[in-house]
Amino acid sequence: MATEDAAARLYDDSIIIDGLNVSNWQSPAVYRSLHAGRVTAINATIAVWEDYCTTLDHIATWLRRFEKCRDTFLQVGSVQDIHQAKQAGKVGVIFGWQNATPIENSLDRLALFHALGVRVIQLTYNDRNLLGNGCYERSDDGLSHFGRDAVREMNRLGILIDLSHVGDRTTLEAIEHSERPVAITHANARAFFHHVRNKTDEALQLLAERGGVIGANAFPSFLRRGFDSTTADYVDAIEDLIERVGIDHIGIGTDYTQDQHATFFDWLFAQQGTKFGVRGEPFPDPLIHPQGMETPDTLSNVTGELLRRGYRPEEVTKIMGGNWLRLFQVVWEA
Amino acid sequence: MATEDAAARLYDDSIIIDGLNVSNWQSPAVYRSLHAGRVTAINATIAVWEDYCTTLDHIATWLRRFEKCRDTFLQVGSVQDIHQAKQAGKVGVIFGWQNATPIENSLDRLALFHALGVRVIQLTYNDRNLLGNGCYERSDDGLSHFGRDAVREMNRLGILIDLSHVGDRTTLEAIEHSERPVAITHANARAFFHHVRNKTDEALQLLAERGGVIGANAFPSFLRRGFDSTTADYVDAIEDLIERVGIDHIGIGTDYTQDQHATFFDWLFAQQGTKFGVRGEPFPDPLIHPQGMETPDTLSNVTGELLRRGYRPEEVTKIMGGNWLRLFQVVWEA
Repeated sequence: MATEDAAARLYDDSIIIDGLNVSNWQSPAVYRSLHAGRVTAINATIAVWEDYCTTLDHIATWLRRFEKCRDTFLQVGSVQDIHQAKQAGKVGVIFGWQNATPIENSLDRLALFHALGVRVIQLTYNDRNLLGNGCYERSDDGLSHFGRDAVREMNRLGILIDLSHVGDRTTLEAIEHSERPVAITHANARAFFHHVRNKTDEALQLLAERGGVIGANAFPSFLRRGFDSTTADYVDAIEDLIERVGIDHIGIGTDYTQDQHATFFDWLFAQQGTKFGVRGEPFPDPLIHPQGMETPDTLSNVTGELLRRGYRPEEVTKIMGGNWLRLFQVVWEA
Repeated sequence: MATEDAAARLYDDSIIIDGLNVSNWQSPAVYRSLHAGRVTAINATIAVWEDYCTTLDHIATWLRRFEKCRDTFLQVGSVQDIHQAKQAGKVGVIFGWQNATPIENSLDRLALFHALGVRVIQLTYNDRNLLGNGCYERSDDGLSHFGRDAVREMNRLGILIDLSHVGDRTTLEAIEHSERPVAITHANARAFFHHVRNKTDEALQLLAERGGVIGANAFPSFLRRGFDSTTADYVDAIEDLIERVGIDHIGIGTDYTQDQHATFFDWLFAQQGTKFGVRGEPFPDPLIHPQGMETPDTLSNVTGELLRRGYRPEEVTKIMGGNWLRLFQVVWEA
């Protein structure tokens, strides 16, 4: 009981940042859960396969939403905004993409989206795009000319590069080519659990060497016990990553998909977002995250499990958000 | 000579704001002229007939331009930015539209464009649109439901409403319906020179009563001596407006079209931007603004002419930018 109290206090005192949340933004339960969970900030996926205009309209919808929910949510464009969210007891929303499709073929659009608050961009999602290859492609020849230019433009603007769904070679080339540290917002080690979505040791070591952060992924498909996983299984993945990258390069990236249904996953897994049924495991519907941390309102259980395993409070704070905060500072504001 | 020195000093010490500039933004001479003229800020037209995506791409291009010209130009989103431009000797660029077409049928897009820095929107341009009617339409039945909602949304966001090219009834209804003062950025009095683009006394009086500002227009077609006009003719139009609206409700709105050619004017005058040759006077090509104030680098001559006619320095300062600054403060930041 003393431990539970200590965990609750530590959680409440910490800045909690979730490296990836791809929930159903139309569902009120999503917002209730995030606010009840006292999550300080999330990298909220606002585009996966969308084109330019659709993404802009998503942002327009979000701006309306921020206006409506101004007592509980705020848009995050800076580290200062995250501190403000913490102080005000609000949930900070960072606009993130899982694909670079919204810029279509124009790099100038990166500055436009940056001006609208987009702060995290994954270079590719599963498939090939103009920048490079995704992790499900037949092969991977790395960054294109356009992709290299895009990385440099994101460096210039202060947009965090995400490599979670990116192919192995494109991942390595992006880390090497980027002048700023990068992120793998939601993945585990492939040597921990073999899955094309989990990352190679080579990538993890290079990421950490260059100052990057990986968010341990709680999506059941990428954990050892799959849909039987519990909070303990997720913390196993965290501990495994700590051994590989060190305590300063690990965060959480829950990959929460709250209130998303089969049609959403069908679309995610469709080739280029349009050819359905070509890949992907069958999922339970609704898909349930590991037992004990099913939704963001239960995230404090991760803090509890880490303390029980003997991690010091300052280490737990790094894992639960401190490392993300440092990376955001370096990339967004350097 | 003493007067010229005094004029130069007053001009240099004042915040100079041009209520409308619709020059060719591809032309380097335009930027040289604005910077040489020590213009503090302009309402720069970045859309007339453009749709959503094209306007967004124009903004993306502008962001690139600000990056390239960061020593001499800066984007203005606030009154503070205008003061900063003055202090740094830079030219501030306010994004303005002469038509509401870029939002197409979605009011949510107003917040998106506001987030990108759009601060002035003219409700309609010459023709009918979803909001109301322009001054060249066959009739004018005022603001639509959509138009009323748009006015309120612009009020909420702090976007200045411009009524220069707007039909008479839509003009009156917009002034009445708006909770914040509005602008007529570039027009003269119809009773001074009869032209459908110049405004009725009823509109001018209501504008001033509600705290708005009109920018005297230097476009030759709307001055008494047309293409024979000089700076003195322009200052006649200013003096006429001062008599009608008072010294606190008058600014400049040169309507500079520097380096624009016949094809540009053909497009402006095309019905709905697509049906060519249906209206418009034939212009000289290139079109020349009044002698003595042909381009922004000669704008100090307006200050000189006002001083010569006996206006006190504090009155001249109001006309050359002070009144615009006050209106921006009230509308953008109240």
